[in-house]
Amino acid sequence: MAASEVLIKGQQAQVAARALAKIDATTRNKALLKMADALLAEQEYLIAENAIDVKAARAAGTAEPLIDRLMLDSGRIEGIAEALRTLAQERDPIGTVTEGRTLYNGIRLTRVRVPLGVVAMIYEARPNVTADAAGLCLKTGNACILRGGSLANNSNISMTNVLYKAGIKAGLPEHWLQSIETTDRSATTELMQLVGLVDVLIPRGSASLIRTTVENAKVPVIETGEGNCHLYIHKDADPETILPIAINAKTQRPGVCNAIESILIDKEAAGSFAPMIIKALTDRNVIFHADETIFEIAQSLPEEQASKVKQATEDDWGREYLDLEVSFKCVKDVEEAIEHINAYSTHHSDAILSQDYSAVARFVQEVDSAAVYANASTRFTDGGEFGLGAEIGISTQKLHARGPMGLDALTSTKFILEGSGQVRG
Amino acid sequence: MAASEVLIKGQQAQVAARALAKIDATTRNKALLKMADALLAEQEYLIAENAIDVKAARAAGTAEPLIDRLMLDSGRIEGIAEALRTLAQERDPIGTVTEGRTLYNGIRLTRVRVPLGVVAMIYEARPNVTADAAGLCLKTGNACILRGGSLANNSNISMTNVLYKAGIKAGLPEHWLQSIETTDRSATTELMQLVGLVDVLIPRGSASLIRTTVENAKVPVIETGEGNCHLYIHKDADPETILPIAINAKTQRPGVCNAIESILIDKEAAGSFAPMIIKALTDRNVIFHADETIFEIAQSLPEEQASKVKQATEDDWGREYLDLEVSFKCVKDVEEAIEHINAYSTHHSDAILSQDYSAVARFVQEVDSAAVYANASTRFTDGGEFGLGAEIGISTQKLHARGPMGLDALTSTKFILEGSGQVRG
Repeated sequence: MAASEVLIKGQQAQVAARALAKIDATTRNKALLKMADALLAEQEYLIAENAIDVKAARAAGTAEPLIDRLMLDSGRIEGIAEALRTLAQERDPIGTVTEGRTLYNGIRLTRVRVPLGVVAMIYEARPNVTADAAGLCLKTGNACILRGGSLANNSNISMTNVLYKAGIKAGLPEHWLQSIETTDRSATTELMQLVGLVDVLIPRGSASLIRTTVENAKVPVIETGEGNCHLYIHKDADPETILPIAINAKTQRPGVCNAIESILIDKEAAGSFAPMIIKALTDRNVIFHADETIFEIAQSLPEEQASKVKQATEDDWGREYLDLEVSFKCVKDVEEAIEHINAYSTHHSDAILSQDYSAVARFVQEVDSAAVYANASTRFTDGGEFGLGAEIGISTQKLHARGPMGLDALTSTKFILEGSGQVRG
Repeated sequence: MAASEVLIKGQQAQVAARALAKIDATTRNKALLKMADALLAEQEYLIAENAIDVKAARAAGTAEPLIDRLMLDSGRIEGIAEALRTLAQERDPIGTVTEGRTLYNGIRLTRVRVPLGVVAMIYEARPNVTADAAGLCLKTGNACILRGGSLANNSNISMTNVLYKAGIKAGLPEHWLQSIETTDRSATTELMQLVGLVDVLIPRGSASLIRTTVENAKVPVIETGEGNCHLYIHKDADPETILPIAINAKTQRPGVCNAIESILIDKEAAGSFAPMIIKALTDRNVIFHADETIFEIAQSLPEEQASKVKQATEDDWGREYLDLEVSFKCVKDVEEAIEHINAYSTHHSDAILSQDYSAVARFVQEVDSAAVYANASTRFTDGGEFGLGAEIGISTQKLHARGPMGLDALTSTKFILEGSGQVRG
């Protein structure tokens, strides 16, 4: 049986990874700049190839928001190139000494950041992810295998070609970047199971893509994304902060993972705060899925508000609407809020609003999420906002990386031990 | 269908993990001491239950070394208890702030070590691992599910009982420690696939156990163990260091993962160094699997040495003998040595002996292994030797932890963000 495209590319990537590990940061950064230049120089070709995908997607009846994410134009290509240039300016993680000491026997130990080796990314029909993933892998000295959505196949192949050639001209080794070209679905599964060749697989996209990956992968995976985030309003919340934060966390960008999907409020504070929250958010076209107490409160509000408050079902507490919808529930106290969040949250980002020292202390200690906030909007969960630089994604697992992942998440470490003839006693 | 033992225990462990996360280090350390006391107090019961396993294993014709690993006696129980006492004295990793800063908008960000949650361990018929695993998980605030080898089932159940009760008396929450009691093999697979309940699974034992786990697990795994380690003797090696290090790395404990399995030597140095290496190691009953050049050199040595030098096959370069056997091969130079090691090593521990600055620099930079040595024995790869304290195992994967894993490897982190009403612009 002939080796498959995926297996061959996996083996080539492993060889490329060894060569990449020897390339210094100056060369890697220069390649990023050349890649940015090449995208601009070849934009006519890229837009023409992308147009084939867009036309086919339209003919297949693809929904307009997906077409929009798929489409490339001159402005978008400029944005993608600019992101590569910014990446070139970032601190180089490779070679950083993360710890070091002289052992009791005189051996000098240093622990040094090294590339992971071969990084595979699986994503949907978003051509910008192609350049973003290629750039992040190169910045961290990793060989890269891309598997983009089949709807964007021509866009991905053409963009990979342009980036690859620019990298080669800048001195990168053969096969430093590869994309899987067959649209056969079994190739995706094969990539997920390339044990010994792929050091980490990162799915980037919808919840269903991520779940399929976790379910089928045999290589190490970093799970990203899903955010059923909570805003808990404690009875001692500063009233001044409630509306600005609720509005920001729910409505600034409802489709992103760090937007809130659920509001909890202390029962004894619901009478005074819930009406103003409902007014502020329904004014911004938010639909509520409310528990009984909140639903009842809503009945005494003006019809235009009350009509936007539905009765919640058990299902609502676990939902990530990614839209102008939010569940709204009363809790007895901080303890019940923590319990509810730990049970229903996707452990992404959850916030408390309170001026009570002990309630805040307990919440940040006991809520088991990647980012736990006191008195701020959950919208800050982001690599750039956290000062981590370029972001790979937001990990919702606990192993290797948790929360916003900066470049360090695409590295491993090794121990270097320098002796003078020591043997173990 | 009734829920299985594994599913029920997984769910109970998740509840226990939340409770454990609130327990302070004083209570956890006190529990470790109580567990040590309980093992000593109950040693008659433990030895009697163990005797049932030993008898059954003997009746089933189990090999004597396995019986030896299975057997408990008073001295061994004292050793196990002592290990728990030592663990109680170690630094507490939970709550350590690993980074922190004030963001541009005034939000104070701290990143804090937290338990992983639920840790599952799969291991073979070694009762000492039961206490060791329970202790390490407790020290790091994790709920623990144990799956020991079925040969040791009575030993595991009795030891888990004794440890569990001692922990409960010391104030630990219900189900902080559980072992899977059914000897049904499908329970092991079920445990490996308990997605959403098990935060990390660590197989401890033979290469085949680890491979089966990696192949079947759907929960995150930390791969440990296999060590095809190399000693590369460069032409400019200090002759004084060659024999002590070769003898130590090969013969001090040939059955452990950081012992060498392969010696490489520069071809131009083989004539002068190979005969003394062969003499020193055959004197210690080591069998060589040699390439052509070394085999030829051996033919001119005394019969008692030459007879212990066999011709190697391709297969030998990848073998982990775990015994008094070693492969021995000539290479052209440091470049070929690095290539050979990167191709055949299990990326555990590999060493160069050389006084040449550039050869050493290149070797430690380019050899892609968890621990890379210059002029010292590979036998030092160990959490204690590296100053990491108690060791969970030695990771041969690149994600999350690489090389000897200290207590930190059983932790994750979370970001805590303390604001005063900030919203994202």
